[in-house]
Amino acid sequence: MTLPDLFASRSSRMKASEIRELLKLLDQPDIISFAGGIPDPALFPHEAFREAYATILSGPSANVALQYQVSEGYLPLRQWIAGEMGKLGVPCDEGNIFITSGSQQGLDYLGKLFLSPRDTALVTWPTYLGALQAFNAYEPHYERFNPTGGNMTPAAYRTVASQAGGRSKFIYLVPDFANPSGETLSRSEREGVLDLAAELDIAVIEDAPYQALRYSGKTVPPIMALDCARSGGIEKARTIYCGSFSKVLAPGLRVGWVCAPRAVIEKLVLAKQASDLHSPSINQLAIHHVAQTSYADQIAKCRTVYGARRDAILQALRSAMPRGAEWTEPEGGMFIWMTLPEHIDTVSLLARSIEEARVAFVPGHAFFADGSGRNSLRMSFTLADERAVTQGVPRFGELLAKVL
Amino acid sequence: MTLPDLFASRSSRMKASEIRELLKLLDQPDIISFAGGIPDPALFPHEAFREAYATILSGPSANVALQYQVSEGYLPLRQWIAGEMGKLGVPCDEGNIFITSGSQQGLDYLGKLFLSPRDTALVTWPTYLGALQAFNAYEPHYERFNPTGGNMTPAAYRTVASQAGGRSKFIYLVPDFANPSGETLSRSEREGVLDLAAELDIAVIEDAPYQALRYSGKTVPPIMALDCARSGGIEKARTIYCGSFSKVLAPGLRVGWVCAPRAVIEKLVLAKQASDLHSPSINQLAIHHVAQTSYADQIAKCRTVYGARRDAILQALRSAMPRGAEWTEPEGGMFIWMTLPEHIDTVSLLARSIEEARVAFVPGHAFFADGSGRNSLRMSFTLADERAVTQGVPRFGELLAKVL
Repeated sequence: MTLPDLFASRSSRMKASEIRELLKLLDQPDIISFAGGIPDPALFPHEAFREAYATILSGPSANVALQYQVSEGYLPLRQWIAGEMGKLGVPCDEGNIFITSGSQQGLDYLGKLFLSPRDTALVTWPTYLGALQAFNAYEPHYERFNPTGGNMTPAAYRTVASQAGGRSKFIYLVPDFANPSGETLSRSEREGVLDLAAELDIAVIEDAPYQALRYSGKTVPPIMALDCARSGGIEKARTIYCGSFSKVLAPGLRVGWVCAPRAVIEKLVLAKQASDLHSPSINQLAIHHVAQTSYADQIAKCRTVYGARRDAILQALRSAMPRGAEWTEPEGGMFIWMTLPEHIDTVSLLARSIEEARVAFVPGHAFFADGSGRNSLRMSFTLADERAVTQGVPRFGELLAKVL
Repeated sequence: MTLPDLFASRSSRMKASEIRELLKLLDQPDIISFAGGIPDPALFPHEAFREAYATILSGPSANVALQYQVSEGYLPLRQWIAGEMGKLGVPCDEGNIFITSGSQQGLDYLGKLFLSPRDTALVTWPTYLGALQAFNAYEPHYERFNPTGGNMTPAAYRTVASQAGGRSKFIYLVPDFANPSGETLSRSEREGVLDLAAELDIAVIEDAPYQALRYSGKTVPPIMALDCARSGGIEKARTIYCGSFSKVLAPGLRVGWVCAPRAVIEKLVLAKQASDLHSPSINQLAIHHVAQTSYADQIAKCRTVYGARRDAILQALRSAMPRGAEWTEPEGGMFIWMTLPEHIDTVSLLARSIEEARVAFVPGHAFFADGSGRNSLRMSFTLADERAVTQGVPRFGELLAKVL
């Protein structure tokens, strides 16, 4: 027998993402890629990080940075984040903040805590691919949740969850400038999420990595803020908020957080003790240092640069796309979502687009828990420079005009 | 219903370690603690880390350090580790190396890959507490494995595993200067581990965080080296090796590795994509930088300092301990394991020791998968300065003389 023959049944759920495999093929320099969902490294606060690591490693903090740390995370950073959450309308303290290795790790631990095999997770169609990958390891059933309406009744959700062999555990969603759809939920849609969650008596996982990256329109309070207001405080809330420094500061340090009632934080701490003890001490100190000096400036810088890129690509799309292509106009974040006529398969389209138009994007179906959505695709604009906008979008438009 | 009511059954296995709770009580300055299993921060290569982060963040490597990274880890670091594994007798290349956030994360992922609920994990009595915590989340049954002999027959192991409701998946052990026992397996005992694993057709997880920290005696090849030799190369090996930079360089960066056949590495990469995408890029670059310049020097420094501390505490124990106390004499690592007469409960003893002798240690029973071993305790000597040796050990000896 080989070692993989000994693996648990859940390992068969861990599959290489077709998308990630495709992205590896896109390194040729003449290809214009709208595929990668990564921040522009030119916006990283290089000088602030240089200064942070130099300072941290020069004083008595060096031994804090290099030594083991408590599993919940570096206290001053947790206090700083609690202050930021307060500004977003979520009154809380450091006991409600848990440091993760990127918000992805929060999703993994929440899957581990909530999901027994065959339990139901309610997700949007499409939803963040990484969330599906994190949850897949715990073998859930997925049911569709539509924040703009047309959902099943609570009784019907209960029935399908029971038929799947478990019970509904949470609604997972990205309410601000979603990956991949680019869409943002209105305040009343957010209240509707909480209504359904309350009727089903389940949790809400609010994944908010793009929350600060708004380029137009008015800020909508986090679902967690609305929950705290209606339920009488964070300890009674059913929402669990996942935040990240990856989009505004830098992803390479892997620092994110979960904000939740203490009873959830305590279990997350135990999950972390068992899984990697704690997130790197030195990066928590560095993020704390840089956040204090540069967080507001970084948000402003990202908003200016990414906002201009969003405007430019949306304008280019309006000029270049043929009839039959529809796309979202995001108020922030990193992504535009395009829907093509039903007869188009964007996996085949990608192959042709790379060959003929030298333009890449992410086919949409991997973002659907049921593998549907084959006529959709995701474009990221965070790295869309002038060439991408003035050459890439028109070339892609010409190709689409041929196939639609 | 509160959120914890919605948690999966496995969350009940995630329990706060009594030991970790106890350690929090030991901050009073007059207590001499042999409890914590952490490296001495005075030995961290502060200057090398300062120089590494400054260099990395000054050149074009800054964007590599701050950006997302592939899940398997930073290629030059993986190549460097493959070279080190080669020196230990494990011929391999970067395709056999996977970077983890500390070796603890390797244990978590291996539990996730191998263990279905009620599968059997063979562990030593006592075993590393963190391994039990990592595996507990996957709800295994534990069976005792004794590397010095007296094991059940393979048929009997199969029967008990089947009665537990699954099958045996792996033997887990720390062959060099084990945590908590301090013991090291001889070459023939290591061959015996491989014999049993072959008869049961299961994996061997070789946890080797202390491997480089030998203070006396002769190096014994890793189990993985013996396995590669007998099975005809790493791709046919059944051993999975978990390494760490935490004990020799610094734990605060959380960088460890797994060395395994490619088929295992591929699944670990998928587990990591789903759980935290990748270990922090910047710390992988920093460890690579410091390892290249300082790894050998650091090993030499740790061996000199910790070796002297081991000698001093062993000498003090010989003078101060009453008849009836027995302890291991480790050839390396961080721990001494003491066994007291059966009527002694070291949890009660710890309370009395803190009160009367102002000396702390870790009670042994948490290291036993069945909660036995209540007459044992663990002492760490990595932070044992002169006061600890000349005052702490005699005070503890006086207390023991009263209770034995």
